[in-house]
Amino acid sequence: MKALVFEGGRAAVRDVDTPRLRRGFVRVRVVLSGICNTDLELKRGYHGFAGIPGHEFVGIVEGPAVSPWVGKRVVGEINLACGRCEWCGRGLKRHCPKRTVLGILGHPGAHAQYLTLPEENLRAVPAGIADEEAVFVEPLAAACEILDQVEVAPGTRAAVLGPGKLGRLAAQVLAAAGAEVLLLGRRSRARSRSFDLVVEATGSPDGMPRALELVLPRGTIVWKSTHHAPARFDAAPLVVNEVTVVGSRCGRFEPALDLLAARRVDVRSLLSAEFPLSLAVRALSHAARPGVRKVLVRP
Amino acid sequence: MKALVFEGGRAAVRDVDTPRLRRGFVRVRVVLSGICNTDLELKRGYHGFAGIPGHEFVGIVEGPAVSPWVGKRVVGEINLACGRCEWCGRGLKRHCPKRTVLGILGHPGAHAQYLTLPEENLRAVPAGIADEEAVFVEPLAAACEILDQVEVAPGTRAAVLGPGKLGRLAAQVLAAAGAEVLLLGRRSRARSRSFDLVVEATGSPDGMPRALELVLPRGTIVWKSTHHAPARFDAAPLVVNEVTVVGSRCGRFEPALDLLAARRVDVRSLLSAEFPLSLAVRALSHAARPGVRKVLVRP
Repeated sequence: MKALVFEGGRAAVRDVDTPRLRRGFVRVRVVLSGICNTDLELKRGYHGFAGIPGHEFVGIVEGPAVSPWVGKRVVGEINLACGRCEWCGRGLKRHCPKRTVLGILGHPGAHAQYLTLPEENLRAVPAGIADEEAVFVEPLAAACEILDQVEVAPGTRAAVLGPGKLGRLAAQVLAAAGAEVLLLGRRSRARSRSFDLVVEATGSPDGMPRALELVLPRGTIVWKSTHHAPARFDAAPLVVNEVTVVGSRCGRFEPALDLLAARRVDVRSLLSAEFPLSLAVRALSHAARPGVRKVLVRP
Repeated sequence: MKALVFEGGRAAVRDVDTPRLRRGFVRVRVVLSGICNTDLELKRGYHGFAGIPGHEFVGIVEGPAVSPWVGKRVVGEINLACGRCEWCGRGLKRHCPKRTVLGILGHPGAHAQYLTLPEENLRAVPAGIADEEAVFVEPLAAACEILDQVEVAPGTRAAVLGPGKLGRLAAQVLAAAGAEVLLLGRRSRARSRSFDLVVEATGSPDGMPRALELVLPRGTIVWKSTHHAPARFDAAPLVVNEVTVVGSRCGRFEPALDLLAARRVDVRSLLSAEFPLSLAVRALSHAARPGVRKVLVRP
């Protein structure tokens, strides 16, 4: 099959072996995959990554023939847990220390004609959700994770720092939960210390000091950004104002599918371009340009 | 009266005017005051401080004659709130943005023969608690604040980083709440990622990266340290492991008085030395030495 492959800081579309099926796994024909900023980081060698990247996708299950999933349109939870450890037992499979992660850690990813996943990771996509929307389920779930971690109620005063893809999804999710949301770019002015909740999604080490300026005493900062450069900030306002900082990563897919099915979020406005898999290297370059939002790849 | 005075990076014991009483305030004759690391920071010019430092004390109320507090032995909540703002209305007086703070911000402190405080800040000291114990109520309350912010239950696996005064108080408070507590110094070895709760009380920028190595996924770090140098750490484990970081400062005095009255914590083991107020400058130097714990000043 054709796949985008990263190795030694280089990217190329190549012919590779179609992934073999293990017991309990299905083969998914990828219909669309989405380029995440994490893919761009992996290309630069983050995590020492080598292999097929891609963890946002929608596809059709094609085998094995015995699977009840065959023929179904699916999205897939990206963490492949061991199922036997303390974390898995507590229902925290996304934190299983033995996990592999689709297109990120030890499991070939979605920028390819085919991928494999365990059946338990699959979620069926309702007919009312288009492929171009379903491919957003994984990042939308990461935005919905905020609601699983932090209390958001009608009237919650929220600021989202970083008007990128994740920031825009987070702002929509918070608004759907009733919060008053302000989405702030690098140069936006906002009144200091006036937000109950600040979502840090800038992808930059500058985000945290800014978040600490904006959040009210006893308020909450949800920290979404990962970046190579270390975080560096004056911690005194965090301690003195007793701010809570919550690290936030992947989320459950169900709330994201529900929001899309109910048309309570608009992901189409985040689409910038679509490339065929053969041009996936060009797609990566395009995705890295300032102002470009979601770039899709079609095998 | 005699008082320790900081000004322009220098410390001296001087004759100053005895503080005048405002409406609702009492005059307290200080019996003992405690030197906190914050005092040492204030001496170096932290917050641009100038004036009488000291916020840990036990004393006897001496006036005004109409006050029902006259003759009582008291400790005192250090934040002087405006009583009229949104924060005060919500019962969060310790976060009142207009507050002054005894011996730290805009209100003369306890390393003096007398101090003043509003009556509402006073707490009576039960007879069973000695002066040398009561002077620990303020830092012990700061340790108890952890229990108001974070769930600690029998069996909670907790590590306290930083075997200084605050770290040792925090370890005792957590143990009294049923946690299994390990107190870790700079060179202590501990198994990575095995603690539900880590209290960062090192007073050093190195503490946070260490805390992030020790805490379990979805675990909690209570951040107690304030220090001049900015915090600097790789934030990826915070985000990926969805760690919660809780800034923690002052606490309510009641739980601290209860613990002392019930003899469930031992503060005497933290006493290093006592100096008369006339030698308060020497007391500060002594308190700054490595390995020295609490130094008391007796006016």
